[in-house]
Amino acid sequence: MFDLLLTNANVATMDGEEPFGLVADGAIGITDGKIAWIGPSAAAREDQAGEVRDLGGQVVTPGLVDPHTHIVYGEEGLDDFEVLSQGGGRWDLEPAGAGIWAMAKRTRALSEEALYAASRRRMSRLVANGVTTVESKSGAGLDRDTELRQMRVSRALGEDLPVTVVSTYLGAHGLPPEEFGGRRDDYVTFMCEEVLPEAARQGVVDHVDGFCDANGYSHGQIGRLFDRARSFGLPVKLHADQYTDFGAGGVVAKHRGLSADHLEYASRATVEAMAEAGTVATLLPGAHLTFHETRKPPVDLFRELGVPMALATNSNPVSSPTVSPASQMHLACYLFRLTPEEALRGFTVNGARALGLSDEAGRIAPGRAADLAAWDTEDPRGIAYRIGGSDCTLVVKDGVVVHEMRPLGTLA
Amino acid sequence: MFDLLLTNANVATMDGEEPFGLVADGAIGITDGKIAWIGPSAAAREDQAGEVRDLGGQVVTPGLVDPHTHIVYGEEGLDDFEVLSQGGGRWDLEPAGAGIWAMAKRTRALSEEALYAASRRRMSRLVANGVTTVESKSGAGLDRDTELRQMRVSRALGEDLPVTVVSTYLGAHGLPPEEFGGRRDDYVTFMCEEVLPEAARQGVVDHVDGFCDANGYSHGQIGRLFDRARSFGLPVKLHADQYTDFGAGGVVAKHRGLSADHLEYASRATVEAMAEAGTVATLLPGAHLTFHETRKPPVDLFRELGVPMALATNSNPVSSPTVSPASQMHLACYLFRLTPEEALRGFTVNGARALGLSDEAGRIAPGRAADLAAWDTEDPRGIAYRIGGSDCTLVVKDGVVVHEMRPLGTLA
Repeated sequence: MFDLLLTNANVATMDGEEPFGLVADGAIGITDGKIAWIGPSAAAREDQAGEVRDLGGQVVTPGLVDPHTHIVYGEEGLDDFEVLSQGGGRWDLEPAGAGIWAMAKRTRALSEEALYAASRRRMSRLVANGVTTVESKSGAGLDRDTELRQMRVSRALGEDLPVTVVSTYLGAHGLPPEEFGGRRDDYVTFMCEEVLPEAARQGVVDHVDGFCDANGYSHGQIGRLFDRARSFGLPVKLHADQYTDFGAGGVVAKHRGLSADHLEYASRATVEAMAEAGTVATLLPGAHLTFHETRKPPVDLFRELGVPMALATNSNPVSSPTVSPASQMHLACYLFRLTPEEALRGFTVNGARALGLSDEAGRIAPGRAADLAAWDTEDPRGIAYRIGGSDCTLVVKDGVVVHEMRPLGTLA
Repeated sequence: MFDLLLTNANVATMDGEEPFGLVADGAIGITDGKIAWIGPSAAAREDQAGEVRDLGGQVVTPGLVDPHTHIVYGEEGLDDFEVLSQGGGRWDLEPAGAGIWAMAKRTRALSEEALYAASRRRMSRLVANGVTTVESKSGAGLDRDTELRQMRVSRALGEDLPVTVVSTYLGAHGLPPEEFGGRRDDYVTFMCEEVLPEAARQGVVDHVDGFCDANGYSHGQIGRLFDRARSFGLPVKLHADQYTDFGAGGVVAKHRGLSADHLEYASRATVEAMAEAGTVATLLPGAHLTFHETRKPPVDLFRELGVPMALATNSNPVSSPTVSPASQMHLACYLFRLTPEEALRGFTVNGARALGLSDEAGRIAPGRAADLAAWDTEDPRGIAYRIGGSDCTLVVKDGVVVHEMRPLGTLA
């Protein structure tokens, strides 16, 4: 007996040897929030199901895993948009009164309730666009209280909305100029001794991340932060090699971290180190477009050396204002020349791997949580095909339908 | 007495001198499908309204005008996507069995009912994304019967869906190789004598369009087609100067046409001719992205010489698979450096002008049709801000709510 039976679906299980792990004209039976059965639609026992949904040939994928977001913040970054859309680059933001520090000041000003409300609205759209597992970073406060507030909001969103949230401490996103200008080592000490222990005590942090770059934190500073993270049992990762070849992917690899993210300037030596350590390359096409970057991440090297490629929305108000994973799959194909299958793999199996959740998310298989998304296409390549991405028509979290796109003309 | 009163809205009227024609914290009263009143929300007489909707500070714009689409076709262009996303260009499509001719063969194979169903599904999404007036081209058949079928489907969509449809005959989209290979002049005669008169007789054509290029139709061939169009009283326009400086924008201007579209390679002389003739420049960022074009349309020249810039989705399965105008506004800002206001103007006042509908669409003003769209942003710059575009939350056509975005967690 199934609680819910989805029939007449092209199921991209992302499992097994077939492209997309495709079960054409398939069906999925769900019991107690888990996938109980996958098979041909013709063999589906509709009389054995509490509810049956005929998907009319649409593609069903695993619920998407978005492994890199900064979705908890205050106001949108419309000043950043004005600078960047007119041709400005990353380092033009701060002189224009925009950028990370401006965002931090906007976010510090918000109460926890207001921060929660603004973030919940965006997170709801991310779920409606197919995401059932998401990483959510702090880093929009850069002080103790705002960072803790952000992490509590990430936790609360995971409790209140139908989405699994992994909360990441990203105090090392930037250096707060008013408190720690010119004192980067002291800020690292502050993170290690004042913020991270309290976040661990409150139970609101799962991962630790940083910005390792000539304009950011050094290998040694990140090493101190990572050692402290691991003293709390927290996995680590980095914003790495986005603007220069800084060997930051190698720092993640050395610390056996989960993922190195961005990576436009990663060298062969860095990719080799990542391959050896099993570190995932998380690619972020939104920031690539927004910052007018022309250097592509070394996708051929990742393929050659077997480094798994994840994709993420990088949802944030400065460099990637988006709540649509499918729009990022489209960009990843055009800007990075990923195949449509690699793009979907990036937001499913490899996204899960980037979060250390390979056993819990990213594939459709019996016994796994029934986290699913359906799409307005009959061909799995079609998800990445549309500019802006295909529409997500149905989202199932733990076996429950939590979002359904309303067709035109069905208003009451 | 209003039938519908929208309150607590930031109204981008696109009318008057203010940026966006903004009425901050405004309200709109609607009676008999027309806009009856616009004013401050505080002055809105809620007791005088049949229905009141509080928009919570969201932006309301004119219903969007999408002045260039090829939305009536059969199957999607997933083979085109595979070629283009991996770095292939426009002229790599045909050798790979993709491109316009492959699309024509797929579309010819469809019954009118099947063509209608496929097109209705896409058009419904376009409306849900804020469009209340749209141009819909033929050109996916290149024979008599399929082209007429496409134009009938365009008409039927305008009758059946809450959207005003302008139907364009685009037989001169390409040259059908099997019937007219090497006989371009004969095909022009065929269009002028066999298809266009019948389309006019059936009452299914409003405009005539063509592809004027070294790889397409010559100035003289387009001149013959345009003369014939004008004998039926039909306004004309062109796909112009997309791949080379062919002076095609000047051909439109010479014929006092409505718009020249694409224009990446338009010269100063062409833009001067367009300015003199009042021809609109319709910019199409989707195809620019998809074809990896690096030359931008001469936006500064359009500004300098006062040529109105329209924007369009160019919705089609080959070069612009999208049903989202907001995603195109975003791209227009990043790829062409339009301002957010110019981008919205492109899909409202200037889109209407490109269709010869300045008096009917594209502005919010008393006495005009109540065609409106609301957006998930409080700042009108926010519509273009998100990658993939802001979400459209509400669409009103002739005073009737025809689409409303369902928030997460409101399933029955």
